Amino acid sequence: MSRKKLNIGLFGLGCVGFGLYEVLEKTPGLKANIKRICVKDPLKPRPIPSDQLTFNPDDILNDPEINTVVELIDDAQAAYHLVKNALQKGKAVVTANKRMIAEHLEELIHLQQQYNAPLLYEAACCASIPIIRNLEEYYDTDLLESIEGIINGSTNYILTKTSEEPVSFQQALHQAQQKGYAESNPTLDIGGFDAKYKLQLLLAHAFGIVVPPEAIFNLGIDQLSEVEFNYAREKGMKIKLIALAEKNTNGTVSAFVLPKFISKRDKLYDVDDVFNGVKTKSYFSDTQFFMGRGAGAYPTASAVLSDVSALTYDYRYEYKKRNQSERLQSDKDISLKIFLRHQPNDSLSLKLFFELVQESYLNHTSGYIIGRLALAQLKEIIRIYTSTVSAVWMEEGPPINH
Amino acid sequence: MSRKKLNIGLFGLGCVGFGLYEVLEKTPGLKANIKRICVKDPLKPRPIPSDQLTFNPDDILNDPEINTVVELIDDAQAAYHLVKNALQKGKAVVTANKRMIAEHLEELIHLQQQYNAPLLYEAACCASIPIIRNLEEYYDTDLLESIEGIINGSTNYILTKTSEEPVSFQQALHQAQQKGYAESNPTLDIGGFDAKYKLQLLLAHAFGIVVPPEAIFNLGIDQLSEVEFNYAREKGMKIKLIALAEKNTNGTVSAFVLPKFISKRDKLYDVDDVFNGVKTKSYFSDTQFFMGRGAGAYPTASAVLSDVSALTYDYRYEYKKRNQSERLQSDKDISLKIFLRHQPNDSLSLKLFFELVQESYLNHTSGYIIGRLALAQLKEIIRIYTSTVSAVWMEEGPPINH
Repeated sequence: MSRKKLNIGLFGLGCVGFGLYEVLEKTPGLKANIKRICVKDPLKPRPIPSDQLTFNPDDILNDPEINTVVELIDDAQAAYHLVKNALQKGKAVVTANKRMIAEHLEELIHLQQQYNAPLLYEAACCASIPIIRNLEEYYDTDLLESIEGIINGSTNYILTKTSEEPVSFQQALHQAQQKGYAESNPTLDIGGFDAKYKLQLLLAHAFGIVVPPEAIFNLGIDQLSEVEFNYAREKGMKIKLIALAEKNTNGTVSAFVLPKFISKRDKLYDVDDVFNGVKTKSYFSDTQFFMGRGAGAYPTASAVLSDVSALTYDYRYEYKKRNQSERLQSDKDISLKIFLRHQPNDSLSLKLFFELVQESYLNHTSGYIIGRLALAQLKEIIRIYTSTVSAVWMEEGPPINH
Repeated sequence: MSRKKLNIGLFGLGCVGFGLYEVLEKTPGLKANIKRICVKDPLKPRPIPSDQLTFNPDDILNDPEINTVVELIDDAQAAYHLVKNALQKGKAVVTANKRMIAEHLEELIHLQQQYNAPLLYEAACCASIPIIRNLEEYYDTDLLESIEGIINGSTNYILTKTSEEPVSFQQALHQAQQKGYAESNPTLDIGGFDAKYKLQLLLAHAFGIVVPPEAIFNLGIDQLSEVEFNYAREKGMKIKLIALAEKNTNGTVSAFVLPKFISKRDKLYDVDDVFNGVKTKSYFSDTQFFMGRGAGAYPTASAVLSDVSALTYDYRYEYKKRNQSERLQSDKDISLKIFLRHQPNDSLSLKLFFELVQESYLNHTSGYIIGRLALAQLKEIIRIYTSTVSAVWMEEGPPINH
């Protein structure tokens, strides 16, 4: 197996882009060099030789010597056009833009086949954790039952700070943004959208299911209050933002993003700060757990680099599991044990949404209901009661160890 | 990338071999079928069509249609001859035999190059955890600082049982053997040899260092007594058998296998039973943690299968890091904080071996010394005092979180 020499055109020189630039400088063993870097702002000073820089994307896209495009810009729409254009020109592409991939996954898979050009995006999901590659290669032949994890570093950082230190949610969010962990639009993170985009990628590689973002339910952490954090503390648990994809006995796959109470016995309990953690369960390997940094310039750059390295031996995703024709479970058929915090006056009307109410609590300022609820009903509750409610998923029965 | 069709010749139909047979039956998507299975005992009844079975290795080795040999027999010496022969005939080989690989690694790397035939052995190290592939591919471009882990499932099972339940060491060993977790020769496991063989493989893929087994210090769990287990319990710690490979500031790599007191804050604390756990630390990705089943027929078979799957696209290890010319730190230059349990009368003479004694304790039946000790001195102590001493490595300073 002889390795291909890569001539890279890089879009974007932000945290991750510059991280990659530095990483490449420090790993001379790799058969890859950055020929051209396309940036947006001509006035910003950069410690890069000026002949390497350009402000015109065509200098990369139309350069036949550049066989590999690395796309690391923030704007998902602009990124989509660049990536599409590059694939159509037969260039291999590496990207870390989960939103862009998630919103165009079906088309991007098609483009890869049509133009025989690979698109790799390990860095888009859990930064340094090689989860996509492992799902694609390692669970290729193993019958996967579920994948559950903390896959958004910035919300995990915020939840850790909010629950462990005397820091308000807003302060923690601000800290996360200052450290470069949170996206420029915080709603993507704290609303659970970023986690959903990643879950979409995991679904494609774990179960072969390719769906648009709207098909997956997501609830973020932005409405959580002291009531939920206190409840968690009293019970010796933590609140984590969890993404789950799980095969049901009828062959469908349930997938959603929700805050969840996590007990000490769960591996995810100790996944704090910007770390991500993913548990997989499969027929032959049983339970596996992966943990690593889920955000930050270097961890993301290292994942980008591992994709670049994989391209030197013509690696590509094969999306083999799409032939398995799995399909997503409908929201109305997913029934979960939910902790629903609400305003005191809404208790009675909210109980009507539940299949089964197991506990309810009220005081003068707030109340909560614990019971079984269909995801479709939860969606309806959020639509009607908006920011006056928040929901946290609870494990049924005894907590699971691994 | 078109996938190659594999025609497999399988040696051995024990737990793992039969596990693989079953796994292959259940994953029809893979372009691989078992053409011939070579077994030893012609009289043992097997639920396999008789025309698939043979008792003559040459029926596999000399069959030009068989392009892939999967070697899953117990006998390391016999396995070596089969694997060597198969490689010399240009066949791809997958094996799970860590001892065989560890004892002949240099030659096996050479044979792969000479005959242009790949040898894969993911299942030989941590069964279901894809650690070799991740080191080879994922840390290919990242500067690895250390790799530390629990990499022997049966000793971890024994340590878990001995420390948590009212079970003696001997009972726990017997249980492990009954469940098929322990090797037929228990010394390989409990003496830390199996962990050392795996560490050798990790060293080759993590740092490019290829050394014979004798070059690496290993101490097992067979001499541990209630004194050490009680000490661990009192301090809220557990004893785990740990393999470490760590880059020193002078560029050398320290590598050894030792029992270690593990505090609650260490990720490895919660790795119990037959689970294995591996922490890696690298310049760009920082800390990562992998956990999964380290023993058992299915987890091992699933790792074998993932190698088989990788062969369908001509994957091979490249041992790229051998060019880095790292070398192993000598035992006399590795100084560790050690808990040394001994007989009461030996206290004074044993203290002389230490660079620094920090604590010592004596009662009528036993004593212990805590202090800094060179690994070469520990080796000497074990040579002289044999089974009257035991040693446990202790973390310096505050325990490390991840």
